[in-house]
Amino acid sequence: MLCILAYRLLPYTRMDAIADMQRAIRLLRSRRKEWALGDKLCVMGFSAGGMLSANCATHADEGRPESQDEIERFASRVDAAVIGYGAMSVVSFAKPFGMPVSDPLMGENRRERYYLAPEKHVTCDTPPMFLWQTLSDDGRHSMCLAKALQDAEVPYELHIFQPGLHGLAMADGRNDLGMDLPHVAHWGELCAEWLCDLGF
Amino acid sequence: MLCILAYRLLPYTRMDAIADMQRAIRLLRSRRKEWALGDKLCVMGFSAGGMLSANCATHADEGRPESQDEIERFASRVDAAVIGYGAMSVVSFAKPFGMPVSDPLMGENRRERYYLAPEKHVTCDTPPMFLWQTLSDDGRHSMCLAKALQDAEVPYELHIFQPGLHGLAMADGRNDLGMDLPHVAHWGELCAEWLCDLGF
Repeated sequence: MLCILAYRLLPYTRMDAIADMQRAIRLLRSRRKEWALGDKLCVMGFSAGGMLSANCATHADEGRPESQDEIERFASRVDAAVIGYGAMSVVSFAKPFGMPVSDPLMGENRRERYYLAPEKHVTCDTPPMFLWQTLSDDGRHSMCLAKALQDAEVPYELHIFQPGLHGLAMADGRNDLGMDLPHVAHWGELCAEWLCDLGF
Repeated sequence: MLCILAYRLLPYTRMDAIADMQRAIRLLRSRRKEWALGDKLCVMGFSAGGMLSANCATHADEGRPESQDEIERFASRVDAAVIGYGAMSVVSFAKPFGMPVSDPLMGENRRERYYLAPEKHVTCDTPPMFLWQTLSDDGRHSMCLAKALQDAEVPYELHIFQPGLHGLAMADGRNDLGMDLPHVAHWGELCAEWLCDLGF
């Protein structure tokens, strides 16, 4: 089953968006039988949604069994994450001289920026990830996360396509850019096969 | 036109193999009209051959116009390189304590090891590269070369497939492993499209 998450945008923060996705994961886990869902749960997102998915894949808990709120008793873990053209981090790269990190999307302060950098929170329990992007975005973004996964021996796939632009989604013309790029569109088939191999 | 290079193996060295590929590149350039070759020349290799291709893509010259040997007057530059599961380097990664780098394939001494590490010789004149491997080989090998390409803003594609083993070639069953893995075999189509986009 495919579910679309409508998460909070401005004036809310990325921390609120993470809370929204975590709540949605718990909700799906709590309704598994009622809604006849499969065993496994994968998050998928693009750009800011990709960052959100990477954040939820690297910040998860097993739920609070004592909670009065039944849904909060369920885990916010996911079994896989698909990250399309996420700008992973502002902590792993040098900033241009004299330019502060001022975009609140990347975190309000030092602790939040670090929390929001998925490559800094990969552990041996992090779920497998499928990362893809085009070279119009700096490939070092995906590579810094892929390297963290490799360091922890977490399985992953990484596909960096040379042509294309940020925002291609399925790259089949049905995106904000109106671009149909069959080469980049291979990511969809590759991802479907990857998920299938993982038992989805 | 597709040409197969039979390069020198042991007891010859990797430096000899590079000389063989460079000579072959010059030969093809010198016979371009006679053999009705296209404008562009791409090297492609797998494993040790991938390393060889990466070495030739990062060590090239414009030829020696004054040479008595007509072929040596031609450039050893290539216009693209396709690198399948190359173990790029022994210089970019920490060695296990107490273990010297003793494999002569990786170079006889410090200078040769450095020369044979393609990620250390990428410049703004390095040709575009298509890198692919499976996760059974450490993804950091391709990533360290891809990062060097990104640093120099040289176009590239990078595909790291989760399943599979070293040595899959086209992954269509016609390899030493006898393995037919349609997921990994996508690399061939992706590579053909990438070469086509580059004008091959």
